[in-house]
Amino acid sequence: MSEKIVGAQSVCFTEDVYVLGRAAVVGKKEGEGPLRSFFDVIDDTDMFGGENWNDAESRMMQLAAARAIKKAGLTPKQIRMLFAGDLLGQLLASSFGAGELPIPFLGVYGACSTMGESLLLASMMVAGGFADCTEAVTSSHFASAEKEFRFPLGYGNQRPLAATWTVTGSGALVVGNRTALERCRAQREEKTGPHAGSAKSGVEVVIAGGTVGRVTDFGVKDKANMGACMAPAASKVVATHLRDFHRTPEDYDKIITGDLGAVGAKIFADLMGQEGYRVEPVQDDCGLLIYDNELQDTHSGGSGCGCSAVTLAGYLLDKLYEGEWKRILFVPTGALLSPVSANEGSSIPGVAHAIILERREGVA
Amino acid sequence: MSEKIVGAQSVCFTEDVYVLGRAAVVGKKEGEGPLRSFFDVIDDTDMFGGENWNDAESRMMQLAAARAIKKAGLTPKQIRMLFAGDLLGQLLASSFGAGELPIPFLGVYGACSTMGESLLLASMMVAGGFADCTEAVTSSHFASAEKEFRFPLGYGNQRPLAATWTVTGSGALVVGNRTALERCRAQREEKTGPHAGSAKSGVEVVIAGGTVGRVTDFGVKDKANMGACMAPAASKVVATHLRDFHRTPEDYDKIITGDLGAVGAKIFADLMGQEGYRVEPVQDDCGLLIYDNELQDTHSGGSGCGCSAVTLAGYLLDKLYEGEWKRILFVPTGALLSPVSANEGSSIPGVAHAIILERREGVA
Repeated sequence: MSEKIVGAQSVCFTEDVYVLGRAAVVGKKEGEGPLRSFFDVIDDTDMFGGENWNDAESRMMQLAAARAIKKAGLTPKQIRMLFAGDLLGQLLASSFGAGELPIPFLGVYGACSTMGESLLLASMMVAGGFADCTEAVTSSHFASAEKEFRFPLGYGNQRPLAATWTVTGSGALVVGNRTALERCRAQREEKTGPHAGSAKSGVEVVIAGGTVGRVTDFGVKDKANMGACMAPAASKVVATHLRDFHRTPEDYDKIITGDLGAVGAKIFADLMGQEGYRVEPVQDDCGLLIYDNELQDTHSGGSGCGCSAVTLAGYLLDKLYEGEWKRILFVPTGALLSPVSANEGSSIPGVAHAIILERREGVA
Repeated sequence: MSEKIVGAQSVCFTEDVYVLGRAAVVGKKEGEGPLRSFFDVIDDTDMFGGENWNDAESRMMQLAAARAIKKAGLTPKQIRMLFAGDLLGQLLASSFGAGELPIPFLGVYGACSTMGESLLLASMMVAGGFADCTEAVTSSHFASAEKEFRFPLGYGNQRPLAATWTVTGSGALVVGNRTALERCRAQREEKTGPHAGSAKSGVEVVIAGGTVGRVTDFGVKDKANMGACMAPAASKVVATHLRDFHRTPEDYDKIITGDLGAVGAKIFADLMGQEGYRVEPVQDDCGLLIYDNELQDTHSGGSGCGCSAVTLAGYLLDKLYEGEWKRILFVPTGALLSPVSANEGSSIPGVAHAIILERREGVA
């Protein structure tokens, strides 16, 4: 069996997959939150020059994708494949955003777990030798998501306390192999002189592997409590990950779920306890990091494909590059909900994928 | 550079990726068409035991996925990853169908090109060493698609002649490496005695590589003429494929697009002419193969994620196993259309991916 296949559901990369570029583009509310200093672009209009919310989301996605490529020191034509997805029906935002970029396009959907799926697939393309350089990008927009899944904004609808707030944001990561890393460094040096960019001290972040999750349905039907819908999928994939790699939660500086929010994070910790793991000391959640609930009235926290994506591209990667953390497990979580399924009274299954990110020093 | 990377947008597999199992499940109209003898299951109710059309599509997808696994001689737990997608918002059919299968799930979306994307990714997982065995499945359902994109069936709406008919069908392929092939053969022999199944004479079909397409927008806005929306993407990806591999159309016994239909197929041939290639002698289209337009009144032909999937899983693979063809290029085509984008007057970009399927003899 290939040494890249680990345990029941996991993969491990025998070749280093480097983070080459990253960008986080957000709206006004996110720009007022505690992570504001980690974002590349904050648009206080939430419109990004677009004519409507879908268009705004496409432009935001495109901005993030292009910014990450530029920050890597690359051009769009040097990216072999773009994995992108969003929450809208038929991936509206990604399809129209990607159309402006000259990059082969693979649309992916896993609800708010999409950044997990796109980053894992983009990394596997590199680690499998099918590309030297790929990109993963996801987006969500508060207004387009409310229109798609809930109530028209003009209703001023009341939100229950278990509800999360869909993040207006798009996060993009460019990943590549050793050859691509060297090309990035050379191209960055040409433009900016030696030792510019994140690689100045030989510090890099690599995607080291991950675990692909299964659809998990505990029968929860409350679309205003998506944390409860997703927590079972998150606990299953993290427990499987730890067993597959023979690790414990302490082997990670942080295990960071996507957007379980306050309610879902508690359920996740309880379910992990039932699996035999105590995650509280290392547990965090992008949905709880992105807003200040006291000041911003977001109830259970943030959610959406953009939530984990911008938190990763901004805050989480910064902590790895700065050396505060050496290894984290990034676990975007998705609630497989459609307006149709919800109105038909179906339950809301969850899905989550786990990705290992590691800091490497002295990468010459 | 890795030998798996070919030209501008293509990949080539250095390790054989075998088709291990396949299943095509369809509805009444498809079962009355010229390909009827190539389908595994024909449900004359179109409901597959479901309560509504979405549920019917989920059950149909699940039936195809399970049937392909069974025909391979495997169990669901032996499949490492399931790549699935459909036309409905938030991949409703696939998400609920996949939830019943104990397989790690990766949702993909490329409109009617989805079988191209899912099969290419499933194959790359095997060829890249991340799985010994994966599955690709897509579905579409005439009634759920009409509800999603067009008019309620009860309206009895008139359809223009350029319109295609969404196929009620789901096609599934299980693919795997050499180890998985041997396991399949052994497990099939246990159950059925030696020399049962498609591998009896050492004939196998392999996925040899492919080309990932870009989103291509020629500005067509007519959602009743999706062939015209998709033909530019198909011609771009096929021309790029031929250049990447230094091949001509004659290197393939057939170049078979997904669901361009009568109108789109003509445009595709014209555009290929502009690219410098004459494809007519080897050109065919799943949308033109699946119905008898004289008898079945389907206007421009068939379409939908299920169209290319069931034609591949049934008819196309049969022709390869039987030896009528040695090598084909399978090019599912998608129109990136959402009800929202269409109502907002946006154009309909297309996307298409090309996959090489080859017959191998004497595989011991």
